[in-house]
Amino acid sequence: MGKTILITGGARSGKSRLAEAQTLAFGRPATYIATAGIFDAEMADRIRQHQDGRGPDWALVEEQTDLARALRDTDGSGPRLVDCLTLWLSNLMLGDHDIPAATQAFLAELARQRDPVVIVTNEVGAGIVPENALARAFRDEAGRLNQRVAAVVDEVHMAVCGLPLKVKPHD
Amino acid sequence: MGKTILITGGARSGKSRLAEAQTLAFGRPATYIATAGIFDAEMADRIRQHQDGRGPDWALVEEQTDLARALRDTDGSGPRLVDCLTLWLSNLMLGDHDIPAATQAFLAELARQRDPVVIVTNEVGAGIVPENALARAFRDEAGRLNQRVAAVVDEVHMAVCGLPLKVKPHD
Amino acid sequence: MGKTILITGGARSGKSRLAEAQTLAFGRPATYIATAGIFDAEMADRIRQHQDGRGPDWALVEEQTDLARALRDTDGSGPRLVDCLTLWLSNLMLGDHDIPAATQAFLAELARQRDPVVIVTNEVGAGIVPENALARAFRDEAGRLNQRVAAVVDEVHMAVCGLPLKVKPHD
Repeated sequence: MGKTILITGGARSGKSRLAEAQTLAFGRPATYIATAGIFDAEMADRIRQHQDGRGPDWALVEEQTDLARALRDTDGSGPRLVDCLTLWLSNLMLGDHDIPAATQAFLAELARQRDPVVIVTNEVGAGIVPENALARAFRDEAGRLNQRVAAVVDEVHMAVCGLPLKVKPHD
Repeated sequence: MGKTILITGGARSGKSRLAEAQTLAFGRPATYIATAGIFDAEMADRIRQHQDGRGPDWALVEEQTDLARALRDTDGSGPRLVDCLTLWLSNLMLGDHDIPAATQAFLAELARQRDPVVIVTNEVGAGIVPENALARAFRDEAGRLNQRVAAVVDEVHMAVCGLPLKVKPHD
Repeated sequence: MGKTILITGGARSGKSRLAEAQTLAFGRPATYIATAGIFDAEMADRIRQHQDGRGPDWALVEEQTDLARALRDTDGSGPRLVDCLTLWLSNLMLGDHDIPAATQAFLAELARQRDPVVIVTNEVGAGIVPENALARAFRDEAGRLNQRVAAVVDEVHMAVCGLPLKVKPHD
């Protein structure tokens, strides 16, 4: 069984950088499974910044909705980094996919992985209740998804100011 | 003196589920002190989902504003779960109650409890500053209330992705 | 070298109170370096509340943009408390300053301090993605700044309900 790690944190908490370091610690090259769609200029800019920061140690796989397949297709090739769960969820919601089914498929595939998987997610629930109903629904779904993934992975860390705070396992 | 525990966390961080488990660990049956008013369909739906998840181990007490009385009336009946402080505060603010007096009465009653009390609250201050002045005021009051309760309880845990992170006591 | 400590946390998480206690633990009197501009009545009110809570143990220095100079000018006078980085950043953005240059100057000066420096910052990235582009830009800049400061200080603590959670160094 490949080790599985979940890294959570707020925006710009340094979670992706921590996750990249953890992934490469399992071996090189690694595969970066990007869930981001390029929706607009701001997002495209972020992705470009992100890619410029990675070197030849990384292979890139773009998968906006079928994360189970992305895991299946890349198992056996070394460590994988999934970045990130909340963008994946957002893609599923915007595309009107069956979220429980997609989540179930992802978790089932995760349990079968022989190579390590590091997963990035976002803390989105620690602000004031959003006035927008869709934002509330997204926040709820993201929180539930985070809980389900955290329950099955080997380790959970929360990024705070770029530093990792261990949540699981307990000392 | 009954043990007192505060569980904080963002929306959908799993704090209520952790709090329910901690409450039942003190013995059964337990009393669920619900502060939620049923304001709208969304809230009613959440409460129903919540209640469906609880079984015969729980007695339900609904108290939207006088938490001191709810604690007093239920002491001697076993462990209590108060869910949650921020909805209580919201009820006090919407009903134009005397918040310092209500807080003082709650803390005084909490200090007198012989049976355990587990309290759920929300992290609402870790997002961007809200544009809405009422939301800012609520966020400030909630933060102050959380600090006052955390200062007097025996244990404080923060829920992260459904997992508890111990904040008090220090190891 | 003076010890350097970063205290982060959400709004009303008790971070300033924790930081004041940590600063005075290094000796008295201490210097409070306030970055807050008095933009409006609400802010003025907060500052007044804040100042009323401090006594003769504190000298006050107000510096809205040139934190490097404030550190340089006060080194040798005992411990300093910088409250807070996110207001400073907000002043820089509103005044259209060169943020990378100001950050670099601040970090360079911080590395030269002989007296202790305790720095307060804010977690602003754990809510839902703001709809406002300026708020998103601010959130990103604040997160990056927090990471850079956290990387160089001796200790990082996160305030949760008024209680400190140690993030750095690891046990």
